[in-house]
Amino acid sequence: MSESSLDPIDSLVSPRFSDPATFFRTPWLRDGSAFDIALLGVPFDFSSNRAGTRHGPAEVREMSRLIRRFNSDGGASPFDQCRIADLGDVPVIPVDITRSVASIVKHIERIAASGATTVCVGGDHGVTYPVIKGLGWKQPLGIVHFDAHPDTYPDAWGDRYNHGTLLRRLVEEGLIDPKRSVSVGIRGTRFCLDDRDYHRETGMRLISYDEFEEIGRARTIEIIREVIGNEPTYLTFDIDVLDPAYCVGTGAPEPGGLSMRDAQMIIRGFRGLNIVAGDVCEISPPLDITNHTALNGANLAFEILCLVADAVAKGKAKAGN
Amino acid sequence: MSESSLDPIDSLVSPRFSDPATFFRTPWLRDGSAFDIALLGVPFDFSSNRAGTRHGPAEVREMSRLIRRFNSDGGASPFDQCRIADLGDVPVIPVDITRSVASIVKHIERIAASGATTVCVGGDHGVTYPVIKGLGWKQPLGIVHFDAHPDTYPDAWGDRYNHGTLLRRLVEEGLIDPKRSVSVGIRGTRFCLDDRDYHRETGMRLISYDEFEEIGRARTIEIIREVIGNEPTYLTFDIDVLDPAYCVGTGAPEPGGLSMRDAQMIIRGFRGLNIVAGDVCEISPPLDITNHTALNGANLAFEILCLVADAVAKGKAKAGN
Amino acid sequence: MSESSLDPIDSLVSPRFSDPATFFRTPWLRDGSAFDIALLGVPFDFSSNRAGTRHGPAEVREMSRLIRRFNSDGGASPFDQCRIADLGDVPVIPVDITRSVASIVKHIERIAASGATTVCVGGDHGVTYPVIKGLGWKQPLGIVHFDAHPDTYPDAWGDRYNHGTLLRRLVEEGLIDPKRSVSVGIRGTRFCLDDRDYHRETGMRLISYDEFEEIGRARTIEIIREVIGNEPTYLTFDIDVLDPAYCVGTGAPEPGGLSMRDAQMIIRGFRGLNIVAGDVCEISPPLDITNHTALNGANLAFEILCLVADAVAKGKAKAGN
Amino acid sequence: MSESSLDPIDSLVSPRFSDPATFFRTPWLRDGSAFDIALLGVPFDFSSNRAGTRHGPAEVREMSRLIRRFNSDGGASPFDQCRIADLGDVPVIPVDITRSVASIVKHIERIAASGATTVCVGGDHGVTYPVIKGLGWKQPLGIVHFDAHPDTYPDAWGDRYNHGTLLRRLVEEGLIDPKRSVSVGIRGTRFCLDDRDYHRETGMRLISYDEFEEIGRARTIEIIREVIGNEPTYLTFDIDVLDPAYCVGTGAPEPGGLSMRDAQMIIRGFRGLNIVAGDVCEISPPLDITNHTALNGANLAFEILCLVADAVAKGKAKAGN
Amino acid sequence: MSESSLDPIDSLVSPRFSDPATFFRTPWLRDGSAFDIALLGVPFDFSSNRAGTRHGPAEVREMSRLIRRFNSDGGASPFDQCRIADLGDVPVIPVDITRSVASIVKHIERIAASGATTVCVGGDHGVTYPVIKGLGWKQPLGIVHFDAHPDTYPDAWGDRYNHGTLLRRLVEEGLIDPKRSVSVGIRGTRFCLDDRDYHRETGMRLISYDEFEEIGRARTIEIIREVIGNEPTYLTFDIDVLDPAYCVGTGAPEPGGLSMRDAQMIIRGFRGLNIVAGDVCEISPPLDITNHTALNGANLAFEILCLVADAVAKGKAKAGN
Amino acid sequence: MSESSLDPIDSLVSPRFSDPATFFRTPWLRDGSAFDIALLGVPFDFSSNRAGTRHGPAEVREMSRLIRRFNSDGGASPFDQCRIADLGDVPVIPVDITRSVASIVKHIERIAASGATTVCVGGDHGVTYPVIKGLGWKQPLGIVHFDAHPDTYPDAWGDRYNHGTLLRRLVEEGLIDPKRSVSVGIRGTRFCLDDRDYHRETGMRLISYDEFEEIGRARTIEIIREVIGNEPTYLTFDIDVLDPAYCVGTGAPEPGGLSMRDAQMIIRGFRGLNIVAGDVCEISPPLDITNHTALNGANLAFEILCLVADAVAKGKAKAGN
Repeated sequence: MSESSLDPIDSLVSPRFSDPATFFRTPWLRDGSAFDIALLGVPFDFSSNRAGTRHGPAEVREMSRLIRRFNSDGGASPFDQCRIADLGDVPVIPVDITRSVASIVKHIERIAASGATTVCVGGDHGVTYPVIKGLGWKQPLGIVHFDAHPDTYPDAWGDRYNHGTLLRRLVEEGLIDPKRSVSVGIRGTRFCLDDRDYHRETGMRLISYDEFEEIGRARTIEIIREVIGNEPTYLTFDIDVLDPAYCVGTGAPEPGGLSMRDAQMIIRGFRGLNIVAGDVCEISPPLDITNHTALNGANLAFEILCLVADAVAKGKAKAGN
Repeated sequence: MSESSLDPIDSLVSPRFSDPATFFRTPWLRDGSAFDIALLGVPFDFSSNRAGTRHGPAEVREMSRLIRRFNSDGGASPFDQCRIADLGDVPVIPVDITRSVASIVKHIERIAASGATTVCVGGDHGVTYPVIKGLGWKQPLGIVHFDAHPDTYPDAWGDRYNHGTLLRRLVEEGLIDPKRSVSVGIRGTRFCLDDRDYHRETGMRLISYDEFEEIGRARTIEIIREVIGNEPTYLTFDIDVLDPAYCVGTGAPEPGGLSMRDAQMIIRGFRGLNIVAGDVCEISPPLDITNHTALNGANLAFEILCLVADAVAKGKAKAGN
Repeated sequence: MSESSLDPIDSLVSPRFSDPATFFRTPWLRDGSAFDIALLGVPFDFSSNRAGTRHGPAEVREMSRLIRRFNSDGGASPFDQCRIADLGDVPVIPVDITRSVASIVKHIERIAASGATTVCVGGDHGVTYPVIKGLGWKQPLGIVHFDAHPDTYPDAWGDRYNHGTLLRRLVEEGLIDPKRSVSVGIRGTRFCLDDRDYHRETGMRLISYDEFEEIGRARTIEIIREVIGNEPTYLTFDIDVLDPAYCVGTGAPEPGGLSMRDAQMIIRGFRGLNIVAGDVCEISPPLDITNHTALNGANLAFEILCLVADAVAKGKAKAGN
Repeated sequence: MSESSLDPIDSLVSPRFSDPATFFRTPWLRDGSAFDIALLGVPFDFSSNRAGTRHGPAEVREMSRLIRRFNSDGGASPFDQCRIADLGDVPVIPVDITRSVASIVKHIERIAASGATTVCVGGDHGVTYPVIKGLGWKQPLGIVHFDAHPDTYPDAWGDRYNHGTLLRRLVEEGLIDPKRSVSVGIRGTRFCLDDRDYHRETGMRLISYDEFEEIGRARTIEIIREVIGNEPTYLTFDIDVLDPAYCVGTGAPEPGGLSMRDAQMIIRGFRGLNIVAGDVCEISPPLDITNHTALNGANLAFEILCLVADAVAKGKAKAGN
Repeated sequence: MSESSLDPIDSLVSPRFSDPATFFRTPWLRDGSAFDIALLGVPFDFSSNRAGTRHGPAEVREMSRLIRRFNSDGGASPFDQCRIADLGDVPVIPVDITRSVASIVKHIERIAASGATTVCVGGDHGVTYPVIKGLGWKQPLGIVHFDAHPDTYPDAWGDRYNHGTLLRRLVEEGLIDPKRSVSVGIRGTRFCLDDRDYHRETGMRLISYDEFEEIGRARTIEIIREVIGNEPTYLTFDIDVLDPAYCVGTGAPEPGGLSMRDAQMIIRGFRGLNIVAGDVCEISPPLDITNHTALNGANLAFEILCLVADAVAKGKAKAGN
Repeated sequence: MSESSLDPIDSLVSPRFSDPATFFRTPWLRDGSAFDIALLGVPFDFSSNRAGTRHGPAEVREMSRLIRRFNSDGGASPFDQCRIADLGDVPVIPVDITRSVASIVKHIERIAASGATTVCVGGDHGVTYPVIKGLGWKQPLGIVHFDAHPDTYPDAWGDRYNHGTLLRRLVEEGLIDPKRSVSVGIRGTRFCLDDRDYHRETGMRLISYDEFEEIGRARTIEIIREVIGNEPTYLTFDIDVLDPAYCVGTGAPEPGGLSMRDAQMIIRGFRGLNIVAGDVCEISPPLDITNHTALNGANLAFEILCLVADAVAKGKAKAGN
């Protein structure tokens, strides 16, 4: 493990199958070290049905061996733009939502306090709430929310914090600004027909998959750019926004979703925006026999990292914000 | 198991992994009960190559736990529109085509006699012939036939009833009206170049995948609506009409096919037509290691159920027809 | 679904792949019905590491299609001895240990109150405590505990109820009599060397795998019979007591364990004892790609059912005990 | 493909992953050629439950790449003792038991007529009857029958020929001599308790797994040698006689069976007997995700081949017998 | 094995699961025989990361059982146009690049010397260089190169011959004409940003996936037709040009690629060009648990075969060229 | 990652699924640090058939999360006896045997020079030769060699260094003392019958599986202890010595081998001997779909580590030896 430098292991020198797996082969550091972006696992299952996302960070680390230094779009390498390291996993308490949420908040707070920001890999989508809370921005963040599901239930099984309630919690607690929020890709069978009302009531923009298909990628990017503007924004990517052909290893797959190309191109369309932190969630390795979902998750985490590194390089995502 | 009501188990109360798996968590009933639509497995392999579809109903039931109460398109819930139940599987005699065909016909006849209609899950595509025969409509039905293959062979291995001969049998026996029939998605390598002649000769409309790609979804829906009109129509969905990226667990996968989104949108485009019954076939669980094919099959069965429930609700699919 | 009789579906008449899967193809009943033994799923993961056992009941039901009416040892068929039915799954609240334990206790109490006893399929081993509590025997039960692990931790992650604490809880609360308790098969790497002290201190007999190998099956059976005597006894089988060659689909596999033959023969060696209820736990279908673990779980559940049916038939396991 | 010689491809010269897979890398010949032992696939599923054995010959061929020239026991190489070739698969008619049985009989007859004998790979156990019939010995053969199930049902689903009826058919038609017949390894749950009566009534020796465990391998071999003597004998190996830890890819796995070592040692114990032909059946590749069952099947086919080659070399298995 | 004719086995007479697997069920011949197109496996892994492509030919043979006699586009059957046979695998020396390259060159030379041309299945992409060299065309060939990666590294790990250097080697050695070369589908994260310079410097046309998406299939075909003209051209297809949804079983999958439909339609768009030989590479069966990648590889090999057969039938691909 | 201490991460504090995977959750160190035993991956495939062992270290690290601090036998914890760390992987050059052998030797030399010894995870069995050479003991070591194959070929494919030649190389170069060498578990089909002659000629003790079964575990341990005495000895464990029921994910599985219990008990029987270093080889993750082989490999590596830690603690395995 290289400690003198924060460069990832060079896969042209050391074969990609070598050494313990860290995110993108970056050095594994303690949080006392100097770095700009912490890559973190948040291995917690809030899931009410098919679980296994607690193993997500491990499998995404493994598949991230395949990622190279530069984005396909020819932009600067994030590893040239800032200091990036694998900070290991956020401590959680198995099968205990309350204590795990508190632990995640606290751990992220400590990292933010050191002046760094985060790109996280879940765990399921319940982890986004405590991560954003822990980042502790003084102003509400905008959010770009990729998901098949609206995630605005008032509660689930009597719990306020869950992989289906996060967006509502974030709005209620003033952590995100609903006027600067967009949910993309919503679709799938529904428990009730008013499941999109909370978006409407609070002014969050919802681009269902139906609308996305109608307006296309370019217009979708345009709308999102208009909504979130240049203010600090969080990007959260629930892997189930993809068609199950790209994410069979997830808890609630919904046929008829985005392709990986769609996802990559929309995210690349955010270059220049102020994406200060982000996450990829809901990858469940026990359901991902071919590792395809984790491969996609690793690639998406890299796309998000490129955006966050841009923001950091421009001083936009500086901690103490 | 709820017997006092025909509602599916509520997955917001009882977690989706709970209890024996029935189609969409509907109650499992005996055929003496009062219901409008019977969800039925027809677990028979006529297949001449890769088998395993006899296990299709079991795996589709299992994956149908993920389906919720309402369609993504915001239409009425079928479970609000009519009484829907899982009637178990149609009796078959393993490895005996003749007796199984007879048994399927007879069993469906009994259900139809009670005034109900059916949505079936195969089994391979050979099951469609005896199901339609058993439904016993006085007039020939129209048919919408999703498939990579034309299914119009005169016979196979000396057998008249097979997963490659069904359409010819249905026409020959006057069970479907070729003028009100459309096959969609035909493609793949071919045993002979005259394999589409029977369609032409009898006047069945064939929209090959090549044509589909050229004309697009909207025009495809339009053509189908024109062909079948408002008369009673059967919808049969051979899962292999999809690209194998969506149905690797099937016997005769043909690369270059429909996406799940295509399939969902075309089927939703039939809202308002008179789809009186339907089936999803050719899901082979032993070949479906990731359960992705069965997941898609469950979703497609739900889309078909929504159409049939509409027809039933409007009194169109009434038995004794 | 047969409701007029409690016989399982006859697999010589209806092929084994047909119809929704219930335990051993028994009828799925509501708990108001008259029956002697309830087959129940208890789909809860207390697990601190690899989860997925919430899906155990579904997969064991599916694989139990392969079980026939009589035990290999030629004893009476349990289905001839008493009324046996699948009562569905015990209600649980996902990711909430406290409420799920309470719910399990209450649900089992209601079944016991109707005069029936239970054979349960987990879920992980944490379910055994609330099941035994719910059975509500007036006297402490003996226990035969098959497991690779002693399960006597004082707590785990601050929780008293967990898949590693159950035996201690049962002793502390007077639900089992440590003098009439045997743990068999203990082995595997250890967090600490005093992990077997609680057994010694309370007088529970521990037959490690090392001892088992030394003394053999016959002597093991003899010892267990001596310890538990003829008083009412619960049999709990953690699938991980088997070598992982027989249970790769479990959360904490420990190489070097029992074979299925060992397990079958030891359990058959209990014929004539007073085994009043039992369970099989820790089968995790997402980790069980070949279904081998669930196959073994179904067979073991049948072996236990044979013992419980014997006890019921002799009036020993009668509720109101 | 070497035609000038019947030697298998030399894996020390041509890597084992090379070239189309034939049994043990032997040349693939037409049946007009000169050879002593035909290796044949018989790809037919009679199965009443989980099918897929039609793909058995292909997967066993693939895994047989791993087999080397000499048996582990140091005996002569069969490829030195006689001319051995892969004769491809016996023609069958999918999903048609009657015609397939006739076709198998006829095809084997033609091979036998050329003076050769056979080692076959199923298909399921139903193939043994037509193979033995086709071999056309003038005297009834003895049989060593490895199986978890007695296979003596009078019929199944109204069919006389099935994977559960073969032994009864063979006795009834005088193709095997019940006094020179042994079934080994019988166990598993049972449809009825008189399922072993036919053995007793006809004088076939049945060594259940229970008895096998009690008497051990050496005594088992001794008994079998006593029963079958030096007269011509057929060896049929249903892979499900093994514990499912060795054969998860089969239709009716029964926990608590033979290990591969048991099977290998018992078969090796037959050296010197007059084993004139044999088969391995019930390998279902779609259920054999890890290829473990086919690996074992290939090794067992090789053990049987060694015995048959011995007999051929001694002139005992000569055709026109 | 039929030698009197070069027709593939007729799957309407002999079921597709029967007999040893050869490419498209063609006869397996020695290279002394008369044939026009040799189907060959080249089972060698040059791979620097995830290997397994040595098993590619075996699995593609197996999946090619599903291919029928005619292309979906209704063109002539290649099997009617020329004599096509499976010539087995090219000899390689495991884990020895230098000797294997020499052996492949020599083996292909011998086949070319007999007047035949080749359609090969890898192995990884390193095999294309020795195959083209062995074909020994007097003039440099054009090349159509489907790939996610440019494959123009100067060397890899100190080796000149590798799956990432082939295009540079072919240009350097005058085996292909860079002015008549097109690479299609390039994308994915990058080791460096000048990885596409060699294309520009030598005048090879590079159509990145980004460009492909912008210009569409029809224009892509047009450009390729313009670049390669009517002169002899080689078609090499690295399966990783597809999105991993179509090729999870490959060493370096890159999300966001071609669909199978794209690939099929572009290749069909070459009808009439002078495609004299071709290959499909980088299928790694151990990573291809569902066999989906090999299914696609078999279909693509068939598409390429159709083009080569056209060229051969027109006398364009004649050996001694 | 803890750097202040060499303790593994405490799985009772940080859940086992957390953080990057290192061997037994030990800290990942650079070789400049102070430690006594280096845990190392050696990710190289020399294999002539089924490869994939280059990914062995990664998967064994992942499965080693399940290992706890103490051995089942109640001995001291290796982590209490000495300083143990994960030193990452030894550098190799993909598909280049000569340079990789040199690189491995050099890397191990540097570790040995620091006074530490090694426990390695392959890679295939070819790695044992350069590891022992690199350790640089002044006296020839004894060796305990668990394997299904004798590994004494003179060469393979023209290479001297290979996974089938290592034992011969080690003897020839005086790195091991044949009089203090034992091979255990040899069996399987054979390329030739003189494959065990080299053992006899050089005086290496060979305990075939046949002999092992005859003499039993206790006598096997006794013989090995007699042969190797108290002098420094290397323990190499080729996972294929196990029956494939325990190691389906390996390149050359041979039915009829050791159980994990056998292996564990024999290794534990070496407590007190002077086992100065060791390795576990031939785990191929792409063939190990259920992770069972890697689970066993991790457990065996732990057993070996316990022996080496004992030797280190007693000052026996000190470097500069």
